[in-house]
Amino acid sequence: MTKIKAMVFDVYGTLFDVHTVQDACEQHFPEKGQSISSVWRSKQLEYAFLRQLMGQYEPFTQVTKDALHYSLEKHACRYSDEIIQDLMQAYNQLQPYEETKQVLHHFQNRKLAVFSNGPHTMLEPLLQHAGLAEYFDAVVSVDEIKEYKPTTAAYAYVLKQLGVKRNEVLFLSSNGWDINGAANFGFHTAWINRNNLPADKLGQELDKIYHDLNGLKGDW
Amino acid sequence: MTKIKAMVFDVYGTLFDVHTVQDACEQHFPEKGQSISSVWRSKQLEYAFLRQLMGQYEPFTQVTKDALHYSLEKHACRYSDEIIQDLMQAYNQLQPYEETKQVLHHFQNRKLAVFSNGPHTMLEPLLQHAGLAEYFDAVVSVDEIKEYKPTTAAYAYVLKQLGVKRNEVLFLSSNGWDINGAANFGFHTAWINRNNLPADKLGQELDKIYHDLNGLKGDW
Repeated sequence: MTKIKAMVFDVYGTLFDVHTVQDACEQHFPEKGQSISSVWRSKQLEYAFLRQLMGQYEPFTQVTKDALHYSLEKHACRYSDEIIQDLMQAYNQLQPYEETKQVLHHFQNRKLAVFSNGPHTMLEPLLQHAGLAEYFDAVVSVDEIKEYKPTTAAYAYVLKQLGVKRNEVLFLSSNGWDINGAANFGFHTAWINRNNLPADKLGQELDKIYHDLNGLKGDW
Repeated sequence: MTKIKAMVFDVYGTLFDVHTVQDACEQHFPEKGQSISSVWRSKQLEYAFLRQLMGQYEPFTQVTKDALHYSLEKHACRYSDEIIQDLMQAYNQLQPYEETKQVLHHFQNRKLAVFSNGPHTMLEPLLQHAGLAEYFDAVVSVDEIKEYKPTTAAYAYVLKQLGVKRNEVLFLSSNGWDINGAANFGFHTAWINRNNLPADKLGQELDKIYHDLNGLKGDW
């Protein structure tokens, strides 16, 4: 295998647990927090994909807010602008997974980057809040070109920003759609299969599969 | 409103109930039929969208089979090629909704078409089996151009096949992603909101919303 010159991490679901927002949901809407969070996440992804397909890009902030509205309506929740603001704020304070910081520390001498569907206005506060910003040489957002992952144009963009070749990149994501998109583009891939799910059937081969980020330490 | 010259129907979920396949799932995997069917459908849609985004089109037959494999693996089902064949066969014998035939009959003097992500090898047996083929002036599949809905290229293609203008089309779908894609393209739209869901937040306005196809009869 070609020498890996950059490790590129997805953010939501990979470094950070998007479902830590369910506590805030639960606080406003008792007994519905888990379900609200689950629908919120699945609609957030669906809306990003659909907007890309429809040629109607809007930043992930808007997509995330739209998905939150949908989820609250679906759960028959009465809500105010203040509640929306509070839950959107909670999204910028997601908790990293318990091993995230320690694994980034382990690889601190490598070239590390994040590449996310989120815009900088979401990524910077999130990384700052968790004390992870210092570990990354680059924070790259699809918002700079308005092309959501998993299009090849998106992965081509992060590659250009890093100044390496595609087979010198190890891409890491917990999201099936993302890791398969990265493999389709030609990155080396490690799928962080946190929920022990079957592999998605999208015609791609993944290089490595780990249960959490700790698995990286032995192999790379 | 411009005079409607063609009524264009989505197929899966709109004319036919995709979840009638759960009986066949249940027969092979007792007590898991409903959940298998649900995951099968959601992965089928996700894979079609992702393949479009990744530039890796495969016909809906393959996508449907891939999604079935995923769902069976997720449910820890042991299965054979024969079971896959049997369930895929069941997909070509879905039941139409109870009002479908009668509503098509009501509009039999109008120009009616179906436009589906399914290829002709799925659509023809399905329409024949349900005795609905005779009602349609055109059966149009995205497979002819290998562009899944909801891209604008897909809706532009059905328009070209019908020889009408975009504001002369009434598009009908139960699927939020589809009816919003059609509205984005500029069709008149009627969302058949069978499950009383909130409207998707994709920046589109829909012309009409009905609970089932019967609602069409008064208005068009």
